[in-house]
Amino acid sequence: MKKFMDEEFLLSNEVASLLYHNYAEKLPIIDYHCHINPSDIAEDRRFNNITELWLSGDHYKWRAMRSAGVPEEKITGNASDYEKFRAYATIMPRLIGNPLYHWTHLELQRYFDCELTLSAETCDEIWELTAKKLAEPQMSARNLIVNSGVEVLCTTDDPADDLHYHKELAADETFKAKVLPAFRPDKAFAIDRPGIKAYLTKLGEACGYEITDLKTLKRAFADRIEFFDSLGCRTADHAIDGFVFNTATNWYRANEAIVKAIASDGSDVSEGDVHVFRAEMLAFLGAEYKKRGWVMQIHYGAFRNANEPMFKKLGPDTGWDMMGDKISITDIAKLLNFMEKNDSLPRTVIYSLNPTDNAPIGTLLGSFQTSGDGMPKVMQGSAWWFNDTLHGMREQMTSLASLSVFGAFLGMLTDSRSLTSYPRHEYFRRILCDLIGRMVEEGLYPLDMETLSEIVMDICYNNTKRYFKF
Amino acid sequence: MKKFMDEEFLLSNEVASLLYHNYAEKLPIIDYHCHINPSDIAEDRRFNNITELWLSGDHYKWRAMRSAGVPEEKITGNASDYEKFRAYATIMPRLIGNPLYHWTHLELQRYFDCELTLSAETCDEIWELTAKKLAEPQMSARNLIVNSGVEVLCTTDDPADDLHYHKELAADETFKAKVLPAFRPDKAFAIDRPGIKAYLTKLGEACGYEITDLKTLKRAFADRIEFFDSLGCRTADHAIDGFVFNTATNWYRANEAIVKAIASDGSDVSEGDVHVFRAEMLAFLGAEYKKRGWVMQIHYGAFRNANEPMFKKLGPDTGWDMMGDKISITDIAKLLNFMEKNDSLPRTVIYSLNPTDNAPIGTLLGSFQTSGDGMPKVMQGSAWWFNDTLHGMREQMTSLASLSVFGAFLGMLTDSRSLTSYPRHEYFRRILCDLIGRMVEEGLYPLDMETLSEIVMDICYNNTKRYFKF
Amino acid sequence: MKKFMDEEFLLSNEVASLLYHNYAEKLPIIDYHCHINPSDIAEDRRFNNITELWLSGDHYKWRAMRSAGVPEEKITGNASDYEKFRAYATIMPRLIGNPLYHWTHLELQRYFDCELTLSAETCDEIWELTAKKLAEPQMSARNLIVNSGVEVLCTTDDPADDLHYHKELAADETFKAKVLPAFRPDKAFAIDRPGIKAYLTKLGEACGYEITDLKTLKRAFADRIEFFDSLGCRTADHAIDGFVFNTATNWYRANEAIVKAIASDGSDVSEGDVHVFRAEMLAFLGAEYKKRGWVMQIHYGAFRNANEPMFKKLGPDTGWDMMGDKISITDIAKLLNFMEKNDSLPRTVIYSLNPTDNAPIGTLLGSFQTSGDGMPKVMQGSAWWFNDTLHGMREQMTSLASLSVFGAFLGMLTDSRSLTSYPRHEYFRRILCDLIGRMVEEGLYPLDMETLSEIVMDICYNNTKRYFKF
Repeated sequence: MKKFMDEEFLLSNEVASLLYHNYAEKLPIIDYHCHINPSDIAEDRRFNNITELWLSGDHYKWRAMRSAGVPEEKITGNASDYEKFRAYATIMPRLIGNPLYHWTHLELQRYFDCELTLSAETCDEIWELTAKKLAEPQMSARNLIVNSGVEVLCTTDDPADDLHYHKELAADETFKAKVLPAFRPDKAFAIDRPGIKAYLTKLGEACGYEITDLKTLKRAFADRIEFFDSLGCRTADHAIDGFVFNTATNWYRANEAIVKAIASDGSDVSEGDVHVFRAEMLAFLGAEYKKRGWVMQIHYGAFRNANEPMFKKLGPDTGWDMMGDKISITDIAKLLNFMEKNDSLPRTVIYSLNPTDNAPIGTLLGSFQTSGDGMPKVMQGSAWWFNDTLHGMREQMTSLASLSVFGAFLGMLTDSRSLTSYPRHEYFRRILCDLIGRMVEEGLYPLDMETLSEIVMDICYNNTKRYFKF
Repeated sequence: MKKFMDEEFLLSNEVASLLYHNYAEKLPIIDYHCHINPSDIAEDRRFNNITELWLSGDHYKWRAMRSAGVPEEKITGNASDYEKFRAYATIMPRLIGNPLYHWTHLELQRYFDCELTLSAETCDEIWELTAKKLAEPQMSARNLIVNSGVEVLCTTDDPADDLHYHKELAADETFKAKVLPAFRPDKAFAIDRPGIKAYLTKLGEACGYEITDLKTLKRAFADRIEFFDSLGCRTADHAIDGFVFNTATNWYRANEAIVKAIASDGSDVSEGDVHVFRAEMLAFLGAEYKKRGWVMQIHYGAFRNANEPMFKKLGPDTGWDMMGDKISITDIAKLLNFMEKNDSLPRTVIYSLNPTDNAPIGTLLGSFQTSGDGMPKVMQGSAWWFNDTLHGMREQMTSLASLSVFGAFLGMLTDSRSLTSYPRHEYFRRILCDLIGRMVEEGLYPLDMETLSEIVMDICYNNTKRYFKF
Repeated sequence: MKKFMDEEFLLSNEVASLLYHNYAEKLPIIDYHCHINPSDIAEDRRFNNITELWLSGDHYKWRAMRSAGVPEEKITGNASDYEKFRAYATIMPRLIGNPLYHWTHLELQRYFDCELTLSAETCDEIWELTAKKLAEPQMSARNLIVNSGVEVLCTTDDPADDLHYHKELAADETFKAKVLPAFRPDKAFAIDRPGIKAYLTKLGEACGYEITDLKTLKRAFADRIEFFDSLGCRTADHAIDGFVFNTATNWYRANEAIVKAIASDGSDVSEGDVHVFRAEMLAFLGAEYKKRGWVMQIHYGAFRNANEPMFKKLGPDTGWDMMGDKISITDIAKLLNFMEKNDSLPRTVIYSLNPTDNAPIGTLLGSFQTSGDGMPKVMQGSAWWFNDTLHGMREQMTSLASLSVFGAFLGMLTDSRSLTSYPRHEYFRRILCDLIGRMVEEGLYPLDMETLSEIVMDICYNNTKRYFKF
């Protein structure tokens, strides 16, 4: 029997152990997609207690608590920080098989030197020891990042953002991690929802001119891309929650759609308008990204705010989203084909929230590989959001290896709001090394440590660095 | 090498073995969803031979026989009981990897003390020994149930049913198992099919008044729910075979639809009418269930009577159904959201027949957990019908554990027509204990037998008891 | 640790090893579906170097090369054969987990007695040793086939083909493998694309009369089926890439559709026309196949030529296809039901390119099993195209075993254009024996070598021979 979460955690054989400890473990982290608030880093945020650190914004944990029947009062409500942590501690043992169980204990071990398992019994001891630890200087936002081995991290930023925290951080030579912005223009795509007018006004203000039509919107985006690029941005991220690809993309109708959106604050905009506009804009933005060597990330498959009453009460990103099933892989392919035909397909990473898309995406990749530059042009992203579980990561990697060139895989990203989520990279690396170690163990790949270690280091670090050109 | 199906069957490690034998094995069975005919129990049915017991109504076995090329004559036709059993025995060895192989041998072991493996060679010996055994008193319906450790079983009953067998059984103090009705109102939803008029007439007769419109139908349902409740009913079951959720639910159109259905016996009812009516009724019924603390079960994903010529020959539930793919998880979410908005969402268990829905359902759960009462509000049901295989159950449990709170899982139900299907609970419990044992063995969860045994006992028994309030 | 790809490759336990080496290994191969050019066999083609053999037409390898960033020049372009092979050798180590890694090394071992692993380092040595070996007489097309143990192989042929190579091969008594045509009428179904007129003219010429309407088209197909049958054809293959089944199939509209197709060379034909025509023709052809005891193969789930610019440059079947998601299993079921109702459903093998269809297909089978002749009527085909990976084959077999009668499974086909792809049968057989061996090892099936060996031999060979009546 393996000991629970010791240094050989998830490493079931000797090759896996060697690959992890000799190669993967110490590599720097490039977290090319996260949701950390740049102000937390700039201001070097401190945390008074473990609830502030863990439970003040992490909807993964909130969902688990709700699913165990914890009342909302102790999740997002007015209960004290201690009560909230006690509620979390109490449900922890029932989270058997859930990645939160592993993440929680990895974070306790790595950041708090605590080998206890969290439960109602250990709650108070852990509450106290974490509070004591959080008072130490190494538990500030910046120290957490640097001590986690982070070399580069990309936040997620609105095109209208002035990125002043990024400027500050770039200017500060004492801070060794690179904090780069990532360009997330999703808000401008919601042209059929109230608020679009206000958003475009704000975006126009950031540019210094008014956005009145497709032409000015494109100019605005091009300007903001230029600005983001000047601060080291290397990637854009698009969430596509509903999508029918319309090949009859058409400048005239897309322009009409945006003009209507502004005039009516979204209310006069039809579903067809949204599709035409989206295709037109994706093609335009793709070309802009391509020009600058940026990577476009496409996330799809989420169905957001499924529970409207709770969404209205708590707002977006509070844990009411789920996997949806309305997007077709052939529509994604048609979009890439459209961009390829217009010579506007940049390096692109595809993620679906629905794991049944693993295999279709694995085959989509091969149909758009035209870089010829030693790296794939189109990649499948790591198991994402609901899928970055032990099971989900194994499935995504097994699928990708079966259908594409695993040695070129980009590896892990946290997609997280938390400053102590870097052990998810460790989790990923252990699973990766184990997967490869098993192949060798079972005679499926030769025991050639030089090649094996290169593959592991490429997936953990080098591929990301090369692909994004960090 | 493990011995075939000995006491360590499916238990691959010591923790699994301890969990099963010390905790899971002896727990009573709550079979909260089955299709046993209550008359069989009330009349304490006896079986003349193994064909009567096994092959007279079990379409799982019929399908397997057809799939091995057995002629219909020896399945549902006029061949003798012995010939039918011989046909089943003969194909058995080819069912390698099929749950029928395990169920069959578990039943031989548990009910007939027979360690033989079934094949053409052992057919006659088993035919004789089972006949002898079936003549013993402990092989009556009631004894089979009680000796299987069944504490509660819920049959599946039409709202128009007078439940006289349930009344009889409730009155009989000598019978120790609770046999409760479950409310299955599907027939009233088939408003576009011939027979709807006759069905509503029958339902009206059960109520003592005529059903002429939506108002009287709702009154009838409310009355029957009250009546079922008085006999201990704790759950309703809905099969949703085709579904597009129409948020523009509308009392007026739903009323029109039912009036047209009665007038035309279904022929004037459009698909749109069916959708509007279904949404309206589900919201109404959900509120009724919620009021009484009932659990609503929603089964979807079946495509029934795929083979029309055989369906016409043999009728429904004779083995011509399959997994379909026409229902969207976002539609299911919209339905739950609609009920949540109307404060009419009861405790709900969701099952899809298509296992690719495991992950989406796992994420849907978290979006509707608002109970705050120590139990989840929305559950994923156990791997159902075609999925309660070794592989299917492992997948469903792994998915649920990854995406939700596994410790709160409801565990197994048979969904069976057979009086000797209780070893499927054993099968499930062994798989469950093995899954958990493996986690411990691999260092993924601490070796803490107190917590582990609680989790196992909760999933095998306690959660069901608490959730349904049996 | 197991040695890399030694004689126990993929065999993780003793039962697996015994089953493979004593039973599966030496069985002849029936490759009932491949894309080998019959002229290569008739003319007993020779290969000058390994690039000609491996890289001149195999889009699996091309896709892998592109996915690793190899420029098209070194794939389908003007680079020398040596440069192309060097590019392939160089990316090989990164294909960890990909079936190409195993196929490549199996082929090196089996055809070239070479135990080296391919990489940039071994490239030259392997280039030379393969060139030397290819000069030997046993490396001709016919010898490769016969020495691989092939007893029967079915090519893929257009109904208009004169099959003269097949006639030649049938007449040549010195060649011991049976090379049979398979009937692939897909071109006639593309009635909405340019070229349909020319194709029907060609088909008419093959028949000796003009095709002007549905009646003459049906006559032509019936005649060609008769002709193919006279040369030993036992199967037809249909690729259904987009499909909505229209139950209102109708001779009149189907006739109109084909008349319009001829008059306008496809341009006047609507999507609805295509559907009506397709259903009408599938029903007609099914009846023809059934009459002759042919097996109909239905392949669906591909989305072809996803990358139009590259498709235009390189043509079809050059690696720009992917899994699609537009076909519904219920539509497939409706088609089978339609044929069953018209008494025109032949023995049928169903393959989906999307592995999420494994389970639905597994349940579809059981709904159409009406043969009563000791073999299933409807089969699921082996993991196909993108799915014949280690992982994909295990999944398909586990699913089929769980849902149907695994002992009746048809086993492997190569679907390949390559003369050295027969080790894929070995790959399959090893995986099969291992899967069965594991079941025994884990106590899931009795250790009864007589029954186990029969199951293995049936799946590897006997079932195919019986089902197709070769």
